[in-house]
Amino acid sequence: MTVRSPVGIVGLGLMGGSLARALARLPDAPDVVAWSRDRRDLELAREAGVVQHAAATPEEAAAGAALVVYAVPLGAILEMIGTHRRTWPPDAVITDVAGLKTPVLERARAAGVADRFVGSHPMTGAEASGFAAARAGIYQGVPVWITDDTGDPEAHAAVAALWRAVGADPRRVGAEAHDRRMVWASHLPQLASNALAGVLEEHGLARADLGPGGHDMTRLAASSPGVWLDLLDAAGPAVASALEELSRVLERLAADLREGRAADLEAFMDTTRRWTAGGVGPAADRGGEG
Amino acid sequence: MTVRSPVGIVGLGLMGGSLARALARLPDAPDVVAWSRDRRDLELAREAGVVQHAAATPEEAAAGAALVVYAVPLGAILEMIGTHRRTWPPDAVITDVAGLKTPVLERARAAGVADRFVGSHPMTGAEASGFAAARAGIYQGVPVWITDDTGDPEAHAAVAALWRAVGADPRRVGAEAHDRRMVWASHLPQLASNALAGVLEEHGLARADLGPGGHDMTRLAASSPGVWLDLLDAAGPAVASALEELSRVLERLAADLREGRAADLEAFMDTTRRWTAGGVGPAADRGGEG
Repeated sequence: MTVRSPVGIVGLGLMGGSLARALARLPDAPDVVAWSRDRRDLELAREAGVVQHAAATPEEAAAGAALVVYAVPLGAILEMIGTHRRTWPPDAVITDVAGLKTPVLERARAAGVADRFVGSHPMTGAEASGFAAARAGIYQGVPVWITDDTGDPEAHAAVAALWRAVGADPRRVGAEAHDRRMVWASHLPQLASNALAGVLEEHGLARADLGPGGHDMTRLAASSPGVWLDLLDAAGPAVASALEELSRVLERLAADLREGRAADLEAFMDTTRRWTAGGVGPAADRGGEG
Repeated sequence: MTVRSPVGIVGLGLMGGSLARALARLPDAPDVVAWSRDRRDLELAREAGVVQHAAATPEEAAAGAALVVYAVPLGAILEMIGTHRRTWPPDAVITDVAGLKTPVLERARAAGVADRFVGSHPMTGAEASGFAAARAGIYQGVPVWITDDTGDPEAHAAVAALWRAVGADPRRVGAEAHDRRMVWASHLPQLASNALAGVLEEHGLARADLGPGGHDMTRLAASSPGVWLDLLDAAGPAVASALEELSRVLERLAADLREGRAADLEAFMDTTRRWTAGGVGPAADRGGEG
């Protein structure tokens, strides 16, 4: 199935910009109408030939598309879904790429667009942000969660076709189950990396002082706060509980060390070692996660 | 400067096995006499042609070498330095690859071999262990800390020449400064990864459920406990303090989330983002760190 055309991309940062780049490579590439808060990103995308129509406003990008993709931070997505209710063409399918889905679907329902709205969450990202960091291959082989709470079969087919076209692996999930899972799979690793980086900086270490293991552990700390703050705000108490649980495990390991409980430490390290062997995830060189 | 020959390698796991492989590739490759607790590793190394003489005991490997490298866990290194005091040839230079240097140097002094002993710590590793995981390229471009508390100039030259020959970057450091730094650069990231993996497992997530960021954060959790337990034991209280400090930062972030202090969260994420930009470390694809 080909991708609906034109595609409206609202936001040309890493996620939206990479989508525009990936779509431009397709044999039957759709037209792309895009808007970016950063006018320079929009210019770069035009120059790269991956955007055919540069929209002056988000509304203009939303109004001229058969498939609208919101690729801005969560707060901006929620606001735009609220204000764009009279903007979308009557047959347009709408999606977004936010890392939390429950608030987005609530807003889509409130905007009366539930039948045509399907939420997306591509499990990819990078430390760098903006169109300059966008790459066509970023979605290749990546799981993309597709919410199955809303959207008619036509909308589902359109959104799945979009992600399959750029090489991703769409998987259906309920929004609430998705969001509970992301607290652990995405938000907790993000803030654990920030916390570790903060402690290392406090103790005078530079990232260049680390071995490859420490380097891995601090890669996510380079993520753009702009994307994360909305997500963290929307899931605040759940993320706080996850952080507190990690904190308790660290305290327990510290107590094991102070009291010389080597067998307990070994058993714990053995357990987590077995856990890591349980699954092969996406390639490491893609960096952060959105 | 060429590498002293023969080199005695005590332990043919990831570190010792990779050293044997790397030395075998040199144009003027030294002879290698090696011992391994795992007889199968020793056989594999013989079959690969990277060990010329398979020693039946650690003493035999130590007795027949002009440069002895202890590449076994810290506890075994300490024990062997104690028992090998009458084993080393009078002009042999001795080194090791343990991740903590103060206890090793203390033992070398006690064994009366301070003038000929120089500690090494290559900042590399991998999740996998044993000779099967050994690769010739593992030391390429890697910092190797060389302790400057002991060792005469000849010993220093011999140890530096060994590491330079396999592509590493030897750097001199005092043992105590090294060990203080490793608590933060190495032990803390290791246990933070184990702790995160433990929490994720507890909540029913598989490693395959993670994006590339979460995948990075749990890579070290695959490290072999055998190598780490001795290191953690030797630095117990210092590592416990580091874990407690990380725990406190996580608690603070949790409180920021619960109380909606978005500006504080953003400032913290901005700080750690700037910190990550401060240095380019070794390539990520080498995995763990020893």
